[in-house]
Amino acid sequence: MAQRERGSRTRRLILEAAAEAFDEFGYDGASTTDILARCGLTRGGLYHHFPSKEAIAAAVVEAQSEALVVVPHPVNLQAAIHLTVTYTQRLQNDPVLRAGVRLTVEHSSFGSRDAAAYEAATGAMLGLLEQAGSQGELLPGVDIEEAAQFLVGTFTGIQLVSQVYNNRKDLLPRVSTMWRFVLPGLAQPGLLPRLDTDADEIAARNGVPN
Amino acid sequence: MAQRERGSRTRRLILEAAAEAFDEFGYDGASTTDILARCGLTRGGLYHHFPSKEAIAAAVVEAQSEALVVVPHPVNLQAAIHLTVTYTQRLQNDPVLRAGVRLTVEHSSFGSRDAAAYEAATGAMLGLLEQAGSQGELLPGVDIEEAAQFLVGTFTGIQLVSQVYNNRKDLLPRVSTMWRFVLPGLAQPGLLPRLDTDADEIAARNGVPN
Repeated sequence: MAQRERGSRTRRLILEAAAEAFDEFGYDGASTTDILARCGLTRGGLYHHFPSKEAIAAAVVEAQSEALVVVPHPVNLQAAIHLTVTYTQRLQNDPVLRAGVRLTVEHSSFGSRDAAAYEAATGAMLGLLEQAGSQGELLPGVDIEEAAQFLVGTFTGIQLVSQVYNNRKDLLPRVSTMWRFVLPGLAQPGLLPRLDTDADEIAARNGVPN
Repeated sequence: MAQRERGSRTRRLILEAAAEAFDEFGYDGASTTDILARCGLTRGGLYHHFPSKEAIAAAVVEAQSEALVVVPHPVNLQAAIHLTVTYTQRLQNDPVLRAGVRLTVEHSSFGSRDAAAYEAATGAMLGLLEQAGSQGELLPGVDIEEAAQFLVGTFTGIQLVSQVYNNRKDLLPRVSTMWRFVLPGLAQPGLLPRLDTDADEIAARNGVPN
């Protein structure tokens, strides 16, 4: 295995161990000793990748943007729907992404002004809505900046409520519901019947994300 | 002052002191000693009202349902809009409510299954949507249980994002945006022009909540 690839695997190992430790003890309660115990590295091996617990947490938080995978589609609103479905599948399957969301929400809840995770998501959505607008997919008068902010806020809340109720097990149907309520205020009426909002079916076609 | 009224004022004093302490140190970091220092009570005076920090936090969390003030309106969807505007004003003005939301989100983020705050809000919204449905205000085929859950999830996320960006200063316009995007998928088209979604104006008419 090339050294770079091994380094990247070790990094991922650390992030997964940290995600577990943050999950069990919370950010404040988790120590680098807990993280070391889970990934089996020496302290030197850990510090080679991350100088501190703060740096590990920052990397976990940044991993959220990597989960924003935009796959082009002839209908940009359909690409936006797919983006939320893929993100949901990753939330359900990737402990590092879940920990990143948790740290973001937890820091938010203590008044942190770190909006980077929301800005990355808003940027991805904005790009799709701009293209949707230029292709005539949107209702006249839709402010795409407002719409992008709204969609990110909505998704954030829906995943939070789904987490509290059942650990995000029902997040796919909640995402379907979200789009069914939101699209009539966003999309050209003629486009509505052609948009697929069945998140469960889209997810099944996607398969399990890697 | 009657003894009961004095007791209720002391209780409120404790909740406000606790809200400040949770704000500054987080729930785990705040101690009853911090809370006592802020409200000037003796430890005995505090324990007369609350046996523990956990009990104070539980009362702060419960205070969220008291902020769900439904004011009847001939158009029930308008009452639902007013409910979100009034709740926003309280969030902006009441430190105890803000602390309750923070504790709920923070506990959510650590996987707590305490959905009581969301259930209370969903119940209030559901009641309004049931009446809206029976008065023909809703689109045919709208599932009111889904709609109530969706609206609570959406509002939760929007207030969280607004908190991160600017400490909820722009939450009123974000609530207007939310309703403008959501109502076309919810309300009879003929009703749309008659619904007032200008949260800033509604708030100005309300005045500052007590």
